[in-house]
Amino acid sequence: MTTARQIHLVRRPMGIPVPDDFALVEADIADAGEGEVQVAALWMSVDPYMRPRLDADQALGEPMIGGGIGRVVQSRNPRFAEGDLVRHGFGFRELFTRDGKGLQKLAPDPELPLSVYLHALGGTGMTAYGGLLEVGALKDGEQVFVSTAGGAVGSVVAQIARIKGCRVVGSTGSDAKAAWLRDVAGLDAVINYKTQPLAKAVAEATPKGIDVYFENVGGAHLDAALQRMNVHGRIPVCGMISTYNGGGEGVQNLFKLIYGKVRMQGFVASDFGHLAAQFVADMTGWLKDGQIKYQETVLEGFEAAPEGLIGLFEGRNSGKMLIHIAD
Amino acid sequence: MTTARQIHLVRRPMGIPVPDDFALVEADIADAGEGEVQVAALWMSVDPYMRPRLDADQALGEPMIGGGIGRVVQSRNPRFAEGDLVRHGFGFRELFTRDGKGLQKLAPDPELPLSVYLHALGGTGMTAYGGLLEVGALKDGEQVFVSTAGGAVGSVVAQIARIKGCRVVGSTGSDAKAAWLRDVAGLDAVINYKTQPLAKAVAEATPKGIDVYFENVGGAHLDAALQRMNVHGRIPVCGMISTYNGGGEGVQNLFKLIYGKVRMQGFVASDFGHLAAQFVADMTGWLKDGQIKYQETVLEGFEAAPEGLIGLFEGRNSGKMLIHIAD
Repeated sequence: MTTARQIHLVRRPMGIPVPDDFALVEADIADAGEGEVQVAALWMSVDPYMRPRLDADQALGEPMIGGGIGRVVQSRNPRFAEGDLVRHGFGFRELFTRDGKGLQKLAPDPELPLSVYLHALGGTGMTAYGGLLEVGALKDGEQVFVSTAGGAVGSVVAQIARIKGCRVVGSTGSDAKAAWLRDVAGLDAVINYKTQPLAKAVAEATPKGIDVYFENVGGAHLDAALQRMNVHGRIPVCGMISTYNGGGEGVQNLFKLIYGKVRMQGFVASDFGHLAAQFVADMTGWLKDGQIKYQETVLEGFEAAPEGLIGLFEGRNSGKMLIHIAD
Repeated sequence: MTTARQIHLVRRPMGIPVPDDFALVEADIADAGEGEVQVAALWMSVDPYMRPRLDADQALGEPMIGGGIGRVVQSRNPRFAEGDLVRHGFGFRELFTRDGKGLQKLAPDPELPLSVYLHALGGTGMTAYGGLLEVGALKDGEQVFVSTAGGAVGSVVAQIARIKGCRVVGSTGSDAKAAWLRDVAGLDAVINYKTQPLAKAVAEATPKGIDVYFENVGGAHLDAALQRMNVHGRIPVCGMISTYNGGGEGVQNLFKLIYGKVRMQGFVASDFGHLAAQFVADMTGWLKDGQIKYQETVLEGFEAAPEGLIGLFEGRNSGKMLIHIAD
């Protein structure tokens, strides 16, 4: 028996979450019993999908949902050895004891940093890969528009599209992110939606229309994209961050779906299990040969997780927001 | 050479069209030359899809677009004989001369009235059939919600779903239409959206959620349906009549697409050519054995076409709105 910290949701947020919606709690952690392992957190992931779940299935007074990478520090389960690296979905816990279910043993590529297994080679990369290629049914050379292109999912979407020979336009909320997207990630055009009139900028940046709009935002972004969709265009709906904290504007241009015969389709990363092996092979190659670049915004210390989550909705991340606990 | 009447669009409507947006024009009609036929109008169709086109590709000072049934009154084309019945898309013309392209010879079933070939056995029926079964990928026994269920498309959608063993809920704008849908068409539940609070009524009428929402309306109807969509639900988008005349409210609940993995897909009837033979066989059978009922609102006289179109947006039709010119 020992004690370790957890982050609990203690109040449903109103709008953008604030620090007082969360509490840092010291909890008793049992030693690993027969068949069990104990895992110590190394990295934790904070992601936009968490926000709607704070209003829904995230229990109050319980550890926050979320994914992370940890190291096995005790094992009485023959599948795991002390020192093994595991990826899990057990949330914001500094230390936990489990029966091994839901722990995925990682054998990270020695040429890649461990943290990429929480983004480009993790759930956000899988979301980008399956959302663009399967739900979006991307064809080589098409016209692609990606919202929140500076984020963990969007930046991977944009670069996969570029690898597939597409013309890629991204939107983002800062000039620094726009410069990275243009100069490092190699996008064909980038819109700063905070400083440019969105609909006009999207129209000007997509002279051949849009075949695939990768939707992370909703609201005015969706309206602007709908005006430019080509016949038989696809809109994979990954997220609608503009609506998560309430007060989003309504969408007006959905009638454009009709004559455009456009398909909008919601999805989540767990839909793509059947793509996992191909995804890992493709993405490992793309990362190692530098075809996919990434940015990380890393906050140090377990207790920084709420700040990281809040920061997502204030645009404080460039690329993937991560919490680093230990090496 | 003779003269005959045409109805022209002379002004782009602001909101719901008004009579002065149209003009009744006397035009010279040439006799049928070599290879040509002359067709006299018997029936004309007015449809909601016309409204957005009045803002777009309907030329000013030209005959209105639209479908109809006519009789060949002169033929110098070996494919047609005088007296043949033809279905066409040449718009609001009392008489016209054409080379025969775009004229579909009709061999109506003697047990069915000719007018059904402009609705249940015409474009609206095809729209319902393909939209529900192909785009909506309906499975037997699913939960179905149909908006404008009293209209020409919606009433057929609702009854095909009922034939397929589904539980069918419809919305409509009058108690008389609601009674017809319940008592004659056999829907399981009907909502009058003008007298009932829509979101609450949809929730109460769909205790097992919605697998297919057949979308004719947009706005608040779509928001209400999105709240009730089951996982892997489908929303075939046939129309958005609430937005056609401007001023529609924005849609707020599109984020529901994501975790529901819901698919929205726009379409038009011309997508379904490959289904035509099966459609005609199925629908002829359903009409003749009384499994599909219909209502018609018939305005008499060629000059009534603008009034018929305007009436669609004021809910003055029960079922299909038709203009009857001659037998």
